[in-house]
Amino acid sequence: MATNVHAVFQVSAPDRPGLVARFAGFFFELGVNIVDASHHAAEDLEGNGSRFYMRIVVDLGGLSQPQALAKLDGSTSRRALEEAFNTLAQTLEATWQSSYSDIPDRVAIFVTRESACLYDLVLRQQQGELPCEIAFVAANHPDLEAVANSFRLPFFCLPVTRETKPAQEQQLLELARKHHVNLIVLARYMQVLSEEFLQAAPPVINIHHGFLPAFQGAKPYHQAFVRGVKLAGATAHYATRDLDQGPIIEQDVVRVSHAMSPEDIVRVGRDVERVVLARAVRAHLQRRVFIDGRRTIIL
Amino acid sequence: MATNVHAVFQVSAPDRPGLVARFAGFFFELGVNIVDASHHAAEDLEGNGSRFYMRIVVDLGGLSQPQALAKLDGSTSRRALEEAFNTLAQTLEATWQSSYSDIPDRVAIFVTRESACLYDLVLRQQQGELPCEIAFVAANHPDLEAVANSFRLPFFCLPVTRETKPAQEQQLLELARKHHVNLIVLARYMQVLSEEFLQAAPPVINIHHGFLPAFQGAKPYHQAFVRGVKLAGATAHYATRDLDQGPIIEQDVVRVSHAMSPEDIVRVGRDVERVVLARAVRAHLQRRVFIDGRRTIIL
Amino acid sequence: MATNVHAVFQVSAPDRPGLVARFAGFFFELGVNIVDASHHAAEDLEGNGSRFYMRIVVDLGGLSQPQALAKLDGSTSRRALEEAFNTLAQTLEATWQSSYSDIPDRVAIFVTRESACLYDLVLRQQQGELPCEIAFVAANHPDLEAVANSFRLPFFCLPVTRETKPAQEQQLLELARKHHVNLIVLARYMQVLSEEFLQAAPPVINIHHGFLPAFQGAKPYHQAFVRGVKLAGATAHYATRDLDQGPIIEQDVVRVSHAMSPEDIVRVGRDVERVVLARAVRAHLQRRVFIDGRRTIIL
Amino acid sequence: MATNVHAVFQVSAPDRPGLVARFAGFFFELGVNIVDASHHAAEDLEGNGSRFYMRIVVDLGGLSQPQALAKLDGSTSRRALEEAFNTLAQTLEATWQSSYSDIPDRVAIFVTRESACLYDLVLRQQQGELPCEIAFVAANHPDLEAVANSFRLPFFCLPVTRETKPAQEQQLLELARKHHVNLIVLARYMQVLSEEFLQAAPPVINIHHGFLPAFQGAKPYHQAFVRGVKLAGATAHYATRDLDQGPIIEQDVVRVSHAMSPEDIVRVGRDVERVVLARAVRAHLQRRVFIDGRRTIIL
Repeated sequence: MATNVHAVFQVSAPDRPGLVARFAGFFFELGVNIVDASHHAAEDLEGNGSRFYMRIVVDLGGLSQPQALAKLDGSTSRRALEEAFNTLAQTLEATWQSSYSDIPDRVAIFVTRESACLYDLVLRQQQGELPCEIAFVAANHPDLEAVANSFRLPFFCLPVTRETKPAQEQQLLELARKHHVNLIVLARYMQVLSEEFLQAAPPVINIHHGFLPAFQGAKPYHQAFVRGVKLAGATAHYATRDLDQGPIIEQDVVRVSHAMSPEDIVRVGRDVERVVLARAVRAHLQRRVFIDGRRTIIL
Repeated sequence: MATNVHAVFQVSAPDRPGLVARFAGFFFELGVNIVDASHHAAEDLEGNGSRFYMRIVVDLGGLSQPQALAKLDGSTSRRALEEAFNTLAQTLEATWQSSYSDIPDRVAIFVTRESACLYDLVLRQQQGELPCEIAFVAANHPDLEAVANSFRLPFFCLPVTRETKPAQEQQLLELARKHHVNLIVLARYMQVLSEEFLQAAPPVINIHHGFLPAFQGAKPYHQAFVRGVKLAGATAHYATRDLDQGPIIEQDVVRVSHAMSPEDIVRVGRDVERVVLARAVRAHLQRRVFIDGRRTIIL
Repeated sequence: MATNVHAVFQVSAPDRPGLVARFAGFFFELGVNIVDASHHAAEDLEGNGSRFYMRIVVDLGGLSQPQALAKLDGSTSRRALEEAFNTLAQTLEATWQSSYSDIPDRVAIFVTRESACLYDLVLRQQQGELPCEIAFVAANHPDLEAVANSFRLPFFCLPVTRETKPAQEQQLLELARKHHVNLIVLARYMQVLSEEFLQAAPPVINIHHGFLPAFQGAKPYHQAFVRGVKLAGATAHYATRDLDQGPIIEQDVVRVSHAMSPEDIVRVGRDVERVVLARAVRAHLQRRVFIDGRRTIIL
Repeated sequence: MATNVHAVFQVSAPDRPGLVARFAGFFFELGVNIVDASHHAAEDLEGNGSRFYMRIVVDLGGLSQPQALAKLDGSTSRRALEEAFNTLAQTLEATWQSSYSDIPDRVAIFVTRESACLYDLVLRQQQGELPCEIAFVAANHPDLEAVANSFRLPFFCLPVTRETKPAQEQQLLELARKHHVNLIVLARYMQVLSEEFLQAAPPVINIHHGFLPAFQGAKPYHQAFVRGVKLAGATAHYATRDLDQGPIIEQDVVRVSHAMSPEDIVRVGRDVERVVLARAVRAHLQRRVFIDGRRTIIL
């Protein structure tokens, strides 16, 4: 195993004294070096005690050391590590998951006609900002095929009408499965996904071109103009069956003024959108996002 | 008349070619120097053509020059100036108002128990940031009397219950009239003012400790916490009979995170609130704010 | 002449009463509608009185009306308009220039190896955010040829060494002339341009990946890291012979922290850089930027 | 010992595997609950390996439990806890310090003539935002005596000339000692403190009304105006013998424009200054600030 493969463990458990020491101690005793760790105890809003969240990044190089071999019964496999961790987790009623830097996430990007967010994600992935592979681009319109081609990304055009929606969503799910996709990013995909799709699909991140919870639904920038707000914003969130109500991952704003037309607000809003979406996708890929009811914890 | 007395003319008219030249030309021909001027033509959202807004700041020193004397029939009074301006305005179907730097606005500040915004406004007025006189502080609780006293400001405590509200509001109106108040600032006054009060009162500016139009009503910071938003904001707006729906004058935000308790969000929100309120009051006092339906134009 | 061709007049003159009325009146009398106008009087820092700057956008449709025909001696050409305006300008000791929306600026983009700013400018131009034509991309390294090709933009690779620099700069100037370029944008072009080049070239806008005047010169983000600053910024400015000292057009910042590596700061800095550069180029193309000594006025 | 007394341990050590587990484990084994913990390993800029910083907040209520009694040889005193912690720290070559929520810091505020920062700090302390006692206000001018009096704070006026500076600084040090001051805040104290003073004094936090490292020294806002910057900022830092070069704790900016006079920039700068200073003082009081050479780590 290469020295520089890192694993991220995401843990969540009912809060109690000693959790940091227990989880950090687990890796310490194995001789596996913790590269980064952070945690947060979120008070339960219904008063049922608080819940503990921890993100631990470890260097798997230590797995081949004698110390780890002894503890893991001679095995240095990730499976052995995971089984040992699971034993600890069960003691503490913790749920957890792990990911590995040499198995990057595979991302599908869904688009309609607007290219800004698509370009932005692809260019950031190329720059190394987004630790993932882009599996394919799917669209309900053919307009962005040339963009996908210029980056040699598979492009699937699946037009959709009210009647064909169930079938089209099945095709999208099938594509996602075939390409081993574990994250879908809606980069200005102008369709509402059905509850059935969302239940069957991997996590879906959406960019809402408005400041949630204000101006939900269509044309938020136009709404912002009519109402004369002085700030326009964008919100990246997990898609859930309640449109625009999923847990918020990231938000930001820009200042707008009466002197700006709805088109101007769209233009400056587009700059915020793509930065907000990129930050959210990056946080997800780095396994920094924990969902806590309707909220997220970003560690 | 002292050289350094300035007048601000606020004009609004149906848009047509030549308005800038006509209004600017009026003062130029009098020999009255324009110190600052700005304008904006706002498209009507119902498509009835656009409306023109202009703010003109002039140095009244020029009124005593022969040029002005000749044009104004030998009179250099403000009244003569206003009459001449009104003649032009009528030609152009314009509405207008003027204010003078040697007749500062008189402001009443309404509070309940929280001192931050009150301190902030009073200190800014002392620093010369807010061109006004503070006529008095009114409260429905006695808590902030000492603060008012320390700045030698009259303090009136008018407790209010559901039953006494009409009478209490009459007292407030009476106080405002007696003290020649032409602006009321709700600096965390935790009462909803009745439609009757708002119709009888001078303009009322309110600070909403949340990002409108999201999180209207009570406890917006707590709502923000539950929903896990990543930004908290404040909105200053004119009070109208629709609670929290009046024209927005100024807004701003601060970044918040899951690691902050509702109290933390309140704390950082307080910093935004007072800055936003101060900016809005200053813009109003400088006659920069024009109301255009549900929106404001800030010139 | 098509109704929707707009002209922008940029005027600068010693400040005196009546300038707004005079310049606005010029177009009013012609029946040429002012679409947008703004002005500013900047105090001279050496106390030599203030200087007046005005930007006037007019709809040239009015030029074919009888009113204009009469005033301009029967000619409706832009030349006749310019000559008439020049007569007024001379009376007021004003300097001025005009530009027309149907003759877009031609922009050359200089790059080295980094693609982010290049992509950003090209995509914005395609979206209609930047009213210009991109004449060509020039580079001292071949790396970005494929990017230029994917947008069908001419790409010229002109490597440079200390010895070949004068010759290479001559080639760049020749290219700029041949392609009728009137703006050069340094989109992370990692070469200092000589004074000779800058004197012979059209205006040059540079993006400095740091917050000027701090951290001038190379590796500003690394400097920012060592010094532990809490904000990183970017500055777009006109290139002048004093490296990084030209008039600043636009600046912005992002928050950074001790937890970010120099690479992280570069990454978030890149997001600010490209937004700041795009805003500066847009302001220049819209003729909003006036140079006032070492400062700019943005109208 | 009351249940709700908290202690903060600040630890710094050469980085090595297992530090989080060791320090967290220390408290876990005592049955002392960790309320909050965060850490960071900062790469050494000269390549001498990295240094580990950790902040641990514990609830001292656990000290009276049998588990702690057993481990600490029957003593539940803070001294016993500190001695045990010191033994661990020495093993790991760590330096550390502790502070206790029932022994608040005592802060001296130094001012000259401007009241904004003084008011701000005092009001925040009253609101509970700054966990400290304000021991006294010292000034080299009498102007702010009334402000100190209105909050019933001791006020010492110690005028200073070049000749009397050493003696005046001795008096300030004497006052600080007598009032058990462990933090000095320069809230627009317009004097440079000598190296001798800084060596003998408790930590000193200064607010620089400009964006460091740019515009060091006097009149930064005026410098900002002349140079036409588009942002103005403020920096809070520890005072060191190199003027304006001490480790930066917090920074922020506001947007400015050509339309603002130097006085306007001062006005908006003042709003940033006081917020930045308050955040820095709060971070210091909460023991979140670690000094790492010329940088700070904020945990």
